[in-house]
Parts: sequence; C-alpha cells; structure tokens
Amino acid sequence: MSSELQLAPRVLAVASHVVSGNVGNKVAVFVLQSLGFDVAALNTVQFSNHTGYRQWTGTRATAQEITDLYAGLKQSYLDDFDMMLSGYIPGAEGVTAVGNIAKGLKEKFRDVPGKFFWVLDPVMGDNGKLYVAPEVVPAYKALLPYADLILPNQFEAEQLSDVKIVDMASLTQAIQVLHEKFRIPHIIITSVSFTTPDHPPSHLSVIGSTMTSDRRARTFKITFPSIDCYFCGTGDMFGALITSRVREAVEAVPGLTARESWLSDDDVAATELPLARAAEKVLASMHEVLAKTREAMPAVMDRTWASMGADADRGDEKKAHYVKSKAAELQLVTNLDSLRSPTTTFSATKI
Amino acid sequence: MSSELQLAPRVLAVASHVVSGNVGNKVAVFVLQSLGFDVAALNTVQFSNHTGYRQWTGTRATAQEITDLYAGLKQSYLDDFDMMLSGYIPGAEGVTAVGNIAKGLKEKFRDVPGKFFWVLDPVMGDNGKLYVAPEVVPAYKALLPYADLILPNQFEAEQLSDVKIVDMASLTQAIQVLHEKFRIPHIIITSVSFTTPDHPPSHLSVIGSTMTSDRRARTFKITFPSIDCYFCGTGDMFGALITSRVREAVEAVPGLTARESWLSDDDVAATELPLARAAEKVLASMHEVLAKTREAMPAVMDRTWASMGADADRGDEKKAHYVKSKAAELQLVTNLDSLRSPTTTFSATKI
Repeated sequence: MSSELQLAPRVLAVASHVVSGNVGNKVAVFVLQSLGFDVAALNTVQFSNHTGYRQWTGTRATAQEITDLYAGLKQSYLDDFDMMLSGYIPGAEGVTAVGNIAKGLKEKFRDVPGKFFWVLDPVMGDNGKLYVAPEVVPAYKALLPYADLILPNQFEAEQLSDVKIVDMASLTQAIQVLHEKFRIPHIIITSVSFTTPDHPPSHLSVIGSTMTSDRRARTFKITFPSIDCYFCGTGDMFGALITSRVREAVEAVPGLTARESWLSDDDVAATELPLARAAEKVLASMHEVLAKTREAMPAVMDRTWASMGADADRGDEKKAHYVKSKAAELQLVTNLDSLRSPTTTFSATKI
Repeated sequence: MSSELQLAPRVLAVASHVVSGNVGNKVAVFVLQSLGFDVAALNTVQFSNHTGYRQWTGTRATAQEITDLYAGLKQSYLDDFDMMLSGYIPGAEGVTAVGNIAKGLKEKFRDVPGKFFWVLDPVMGDNGKLYVAPEVVPAYKALLPYADLILPNQFEAEQLSDVKIVDMASLTQAIQVLHEKFRIPHIIITSVSFTTPDHPPSHLSVIGSTMTSDRRARTFKITFPSIDCYFCGTGDMFGALITSRVREAVEAVPGLTARESWLSDDDVAATELPLARAAEKVLASMHEVLAKTREAMPAVMDRTWASMGADADRGDEKKAHYVKSKAAELQLVTNLDSLRSPTTTFSATKI
C-alpha cells in the first residue's frame, strides 16, 4: 500500500555553503535531513570556511544564478515544497531573488491553506552592527508580509520594526509592530542582550510570539544556561531545528496544519503555543550540542596543532585563532541523538 | 579527559552538488555524516537537479575555483584530512586540480604511513560511452598512482587499463594491469555487464581486489539481486559507503591503519580482505536503500502529480519522465538505519 508510506516532507533550504566547518546550509541541510526532511539545498555562496576565521576563499552566487537555479527546479516540477528556510543571502538583489521564490510558492499553493510555510531568518547583523549592505534592510522589509515565521536577533528585530529595544517592554512593542504592520504570524527573537530582574546569571533567553486573529502578540520566554564560548552557526542550527519542530508541534494539534500559517486559536495561551513547544525542544538540542562541542574543543585543538608539524607555533596569535575557530565548529555528526531526541528540558514562561 | 573523546575522522568529499535530489555530494555528504565523519564538501558544480532529467540549470566550478577553495582551507590549517573521496569533476583541468589536492595531502602526510587514504571514483562514462571530454581519460590515468582505492565501472576500468573486458578472465587481467602498472592498492569494479555460467538471473556483481606486496591481484566477487529500475547516484552512494566501511574494516585489524595504503599481509585470502568485508556491508546498505526507494516510487509519483495541478497531464511523455526521475531519487533520509546498520547480508566469494 504505497499510499500508507510516510513520505519525507520537502523543504527548500537557501543559505551559504562552506567546504569545511558548520555554518549556513552546511548545518541546516544535515540537521533537516537528520530530522527526516527531503532537503533541496540552494547554496548562495561556496566559501572555503566561515568568515569568523577572518580569511577565506570562494565565490558568491549572483541574484541571476539563484533565479536560474530555481527556474531549473520549476521546469522539472521539483518545486513541490512543503516548507522553505532561508538564511544568509549575499546582497539586496539576492534577497529579492529569494523572496521571489517564496512569493511564487505562496502563490502556487494559495488555494491550499497551510500547505507551504516559510521560515525567514533575516540575516543582517548583530550587536548593533550591520554586516550586510544597508539596502538589504529594506529588501527584507518588503518580504516580511510573505513570511510565516521570522527569526531575527535583537538587532535585526530593531532594524525591521524601527523600535529601539532596551528592555522587555520595548521588545514586546517591536514584536507587536512586526505582527501588526507586517502581518508576520510567528516571531522568535533568537537572542536578547538586555537583562531583566528575574534573569539568572550566565543565562540567555529567546522570546517568541504567535499572533492572534486580530494580530495581538502572545509572547513567551525561554531561558537557558549560556556556554562560555563564541560559536558560529548557532543561528543556522536554530533555524533548521525550529523548521522541523514547529511542523511537528503543529501536527500534534488536530486540523492546525490545514490552517493558513498554522495560526492557533485565540484562546491558546502563549506558553501553550506550538511555537513554544517547538522552541523548547530546539533549545534542548542546541544546549546539548553546544555543551558537547565545548567539551571536545581541547581535543580538536590538540589534533589540529599535531597535524601542523613545523607550523605549530602555539604562541602565534593568528594561528591560534584559526585553530580555535576550527575547534569551535559545531559538533553535529557525533551528536545526532541530541538533534533527534534531546533529553534536556526547558520550559516556556509567560512574560 | 578530552583526549579520550572519540573525534570524528575528517574526510574531504569532492563532487557535484544538486539543489534537489540525491546524486554526487548530495549523497556522499549525508551518507558520510550519518556514518560519523566530519565532512568537508567541495562542490564541483551546483546544478538544479541531475542530468538524467535531461534538463537542468546551474554552474560549474572552474579548475581555478577548485584550487582557490583548497588554498583557502590550507591557509587556515583546515587541511588535516584523514580521507578524501572524489567523484564527478567537470573537465580535465578540474580533474588535475583535484589530483593536485590529493597529491598535496599524500605529500603532507608522507612520514605517517596510513594516515591519509584517497578513494577515487574516476567518473568518465558507462555502457561503452564516455560522458566526459576525451582528455579527461589521460588526466585520470596520471593520477592513478596516488589513489589508494579506485571505483571504476567496467567501462571506466577498460579506459584506464586499456584492456577490453568481455569476461571474467579479461576483467581479472584489467585489475592486474591497474595494480601493476599504476600501483593502485585497492580496486573495486562497481558494475560488470557480462554474465558468467554461475551467475543467477536478475543479479549483479561487483569485483574487488587488494594487491599483495608484489602487486598480484587478490580478487573476490559479491553477487546481489538487482532491482528493476534505473537509479541515479548509486555510484556516489557506493563511494561514500565504501569510504566509511573500508576504514571500519581496516580498524578491526590490529596495526593495519598504520600501514601504507592499509595493505593486508600477503597471506590474507581474497575473501578475508578488509575490502571484501567493507564491500559486503556497502552492498547490504545499498540493496536496502534501493529496495525501499523502489517501493516508495508510486507514492512519490502520486504526490508530484497531485502538486502539478492543471499541468498534471500523465500522458505527456516529458512530464512523465520528470516525475519518474524525481520518484527514482534515492530515499536516504527515511532510511538512515539501512545506511548505518543494514541487516541484509551478502558474502564475498573467491573468483
């Protein structure tokens, strides 16, 4: 009975590719595949390694190349996607090209509510600084009404909402603007840099919300211990995990997958949202992977120094930076269980 | 005790990338990651889909781009690879560029026998026809002395050995030439098109050999049931699986990983070679994945037709070809257990 087979849902992942290491699609593709998705991977760049090393080689795909690749999928009916996850895209024209893909998919499935869901990570900057060209900001703003879930960090949420975020009240206001003005159904602010009185030391928070039918925010918070190390690719891991987990949480609610943008009933409390369930599980996986990555770092550094032969000058700052950057690459393949079945638990609370 | 942590071995996978579907690095990266490798993926092309659809879009990396990407890895000490797997490379210059990477790694680790192992799949053609430019053949021939294991099909083995293969005797002769003339330690001929008297109907064979210290062939054969469907990416799946399984089989023999090219003692019989153990396990995984892919095809086709709306004209030959090609894409993510722990068993026999 072929119709009873569980077919893998199809997701289009658009992000950067690095030969060595784990950021962008190198993270997203493996995580989504490990969680059972049939992944189409459109790589917006191919770099030797991530830019945190401060040196790299490689090439960027032009907006035209992105558009052509998607046209290639379409002409062979390979565009039957259930979800799309977009991450780093080089330049405003590229952002618009990727946006056109998402708009096309929304249009294609406009008569099938809930069929297609777009998770947009508006990668623009962090800690008060843009690391893309300024014209990328309006390019993303123009796409927001088509996104189902966006994953900005605090700085990106400020850029998109034009609300300066300094505390929980202004953060909530920014979320409200994003729901109301841009009609974004689901929002998760993936990192916040201010502290609150009830915040335990050495902890971080994410804040999420699914809007009601009249676009009011329903905000929840999840707090988790931070790990004292700078990792790259954590945003990409978050994006891939939430793409899978939000689908899973929504599927657990009868009828919800057939509703436009998977919007919960108005009487569902913030902490009971599928988005909250999903984010809890995502953070559990992330905490385990990051803790194990941190734990393995000394051994990875030793191995790299050992392979460097006469070049292994541990006092050389640049070399030490490369070796440390490599050791901080997310340890994904050795932590498949943490991705698939995390045992840690975090709980969403009302704000 | 960080030194007791089991670190993932590092492999460099060089092959094509497709956005949708499973061939080239899209297969190799996931398979190797699922089997616990830290994979560096250097993509030689980015196409929308594989060429079996008869239409595609995308771009090829030039030889210079391949060389630059690798230089990028080197400058940040990201070239500490334990293994390398190379598959499809566009053009003779690209083949030479990839060969230079492998030669550099051989040179880098020349004082550490067995540290680095190169699995070379000389992708050139099949069934009597080249599908690359003629100058690719000598480019591969020039690299053969640096390879540890090569994975030609029957046609490619003919091209490399200059021996016309028509029966088991000429096949064995071709293998002998490859061992002797090109000093290739391990060889697996991944498909043979002639039949032998002892060959059961609807079965296929692979033939493998690990040379002795005086370069004599030790040939074994593994026969397995064929599945009546044309799949793309099977060679890439074979390459990724054998890369992992040969390492595993060699690690089971005390001291063998520290020997140049992991060459077994001369008194090890053909059917007792680690290469035979590895190939048995590879074919078990492949048989399970292909059988399950075949089984899911009707459901995948139904889903695609359903998504095509008014375009779903099942009598249109071209459309039917696209839909069937998509349904024949290897089902990897839903068959992780078959990749990691196949339960089927096949046994090598002496020729």
